[in-house]
Amino acid sequence: MNKINVGIVGYGNLGKAAEQAVLANKNFNLVAIFSRRLVCSKFNTKVEPYNSFTDYVTKIDVMLLCGGSKSDLEIQTPEIAEYFDVINTFDTHKKIPTEFNKLNEIAKKSKHRIIMSCGWDPGIFSLIRAMFMALSNNNPITFWGKGISMGHSDAIRRISGVDDAVQFTVPNKEAIKRAKSGTLPEDMPRHFRECYVVCKPKDSARIENEIKNIPNYFKGQPTTVSFVDQNHLLKLKSKMLHRGEVISSFKTAGDSKCKLNFSVYMDSNPNFTACIMTTYINAIANLKENKVTGAFTNLDIPVSYLFPSKYKETLLKTLC
Amino acid sequence: MNKINVGIVGYGNLGKAAEQAVLANKNFNLVAIFSRRLVCSKFNTKVEPYNSFTDYVTKIDVMLLCGGSKSDLEIQTPEIAEYFDVINTFDTHKKIPTEFNKLNEIAKKSKHRIIMSCGWDPGIFSLIRAMFMALSNNNPITFWGKGISMGHSDAIRRISGVDDAVQFTVPNKEAIKRAKSGTLPEDMPRHFRECYVVCKPKDSARIENEIKNIPNYFKGQPTTVSFVDQNHLLKLKSKMLHRGEVISSFKTAGDSKCKLNFSVYMDSNPNFTACIMTTYINAIANLKENKVTGAFTNLDIPVSYLFPSKYKETLLKTLC
Repeated sequence: MNKINVGIVGYGNLGKAAEQAVLANKNFNLVAIFSRRLVCSKFNTKVEPYNSFTDYVTKIDVMLLCGGSKSDLEIQTPEIAEYFDVINTFDTHKKIPTEFNKLNEIAKKSKHRIIMSCGWDPGIFSLIRAMFMALSNNNPITFWGKGISMGHSDAIRRISGVDDAVQFTVPNKEAIKRAKSGTLPEDMPRHFRECYVVCKPKDSARIENEIKNIPNYFKGQPTTVSFVDQNHLLKLKSKMLHRGEVISSFKTAGDSKCKLNFSVYMDSNPNFTACIMTTYINAIANLKENKVTGAFTNLDIPVSYLFPSKYKETLLKTLC
Repeated sequence: MNKINVGIVGYGNLGKAAEQAVLANKNFNLVAIFSRRLVCSKFNTKVEPYNSFTDYVTKIDVMLLCGGSKSDLEIQTPEIAEYFDVINTFDTHKKIPTEFNKLNEIAKKSKHRIIMSCGWDPGIFSLIRAMFMALSNNNPITFWGKGISMGHSDAIRRISGVDDAVQFTVPNKEAIKRAKSGTLPEDMPRHFRECYVVCKPKDSARIENEIKNIPNYFKGQPTTVSFVDQNHLLKLKSKMLHRGEVISSFKTAGDSKCKLNFSVYMDSNPNFTACIMTTYINAIANLKENKVTGAFTNLDIPVSYLFPSKYKETLLKTLC
């Protein structure tokens, strides 16, 4: 079997994790990393300036977009998908439907494949939620943490006077228990918000008040705010472990109870996210073999596509 | 949207559960039940003799095969797939690869779709094992029970002198704990086997010995045999609750730990199995819309196919 040639765009935490994940898989060949910054790979992977990706049109099959911020992905995905098959982890949940339609048109036009929002959530958690919803005809309940929420951390950092901040999402254990037994009240807080902020002492009271009143993010949710120095904050930010759980408790048609549960624990959020992206490189190859183009989410891709296509018989033998 | 017309073949525990599941879904229209026995539906569903299914070629889109025994499914699936799209729960794990190839040819020839082995295991547990295997590059570990194993119960009933028997599979809690932490020794028993047997007192010592020496099923596994009267056994056989868990503990490329866990609890094994079969009726409709024919397992079907195709936008909005 020919190896699949892979490129990585972006060399932050996720890009570095993706580099190791691709190098560890003997079916893939890591061709180059593209970065806007001047960086070196400790694994001696070739690093190229971002704009040189067009030189690699014949040399790379699949690009893993590991851009650190949402604006990166919204700009880079269309640019790169003009020339390559692409996997990204676009995670602004509310924008996914419009982004999907936009990328679908682009990929159809350029005759490529884009797997978008391909991390753990959105990503395989979305797939599991969809399966649970189909089986139960009910919305499953998701719990996250304990772990850092980038979205909530960003929301705090946008407040005037905040030098740096990080937010840990902590699930409410009582709510998890109630969700599992199918008795979670609508108004029970599902998560606690632990915020750590660096700022000038004179601003702390105002900032705490502002944080607790950010709608959708903190307002109405149990939130604690602690003020720490920059060194302490850097230590907190380096904690990359995370956890999540999807729960569905319902009755089947014969009025009997059924409980479904899916949970993930990870030491390193970027390493697990890179592991998922890398696994879906095989899906790109299968989609290509089937001559389909366009945008896809994890919900659109059969699990058998996560293996090289020749493994069909093996899958049936070992997994069914 | 036009309703999907559904037929049910077989009217044992699974057929009865399927009837209720189909009736409960407003997108489906239950046309008839086909049975070799003279039976009545308490929901007033029309019951027809098995052989009359050919009269329904224009009236039924999808047939749910709820045959009680493995020999039923191996004979009925090819017969019915000549005329209809079909879902079955074929569960002889070792025969699945050859059965798949056989059914794939039949379905391609008759231009129909067969979703086979579409229960919880094999079925959605196979899908989850495949996903865990793709992500971890390791075999996940499955635990079943506490619940009745039909295969093990059958194996006991084949012993001469056994009037009736049932076997409960009980997972080894210590093994589950070790599997979750990634430290399960290869030789640690994963399940206990609780056997309940009805026989003449003079045969009991021989039968216990024979049970404990059935290779693959009991030999080398912690097994207890209790002798009970037929009334007690009937009570035990009516316990339809079951449970199962798939566990994967592995390291991602960056050498960080990751743990995946999927678990199901059900009050009623046939009700949950029927719930899964009924959910996959939508998958048949999506496969048909995409003009594909052949045999499929749950691994081959994207989760988005478990919903009517018009729900694409909703899925992206609510689940991603």
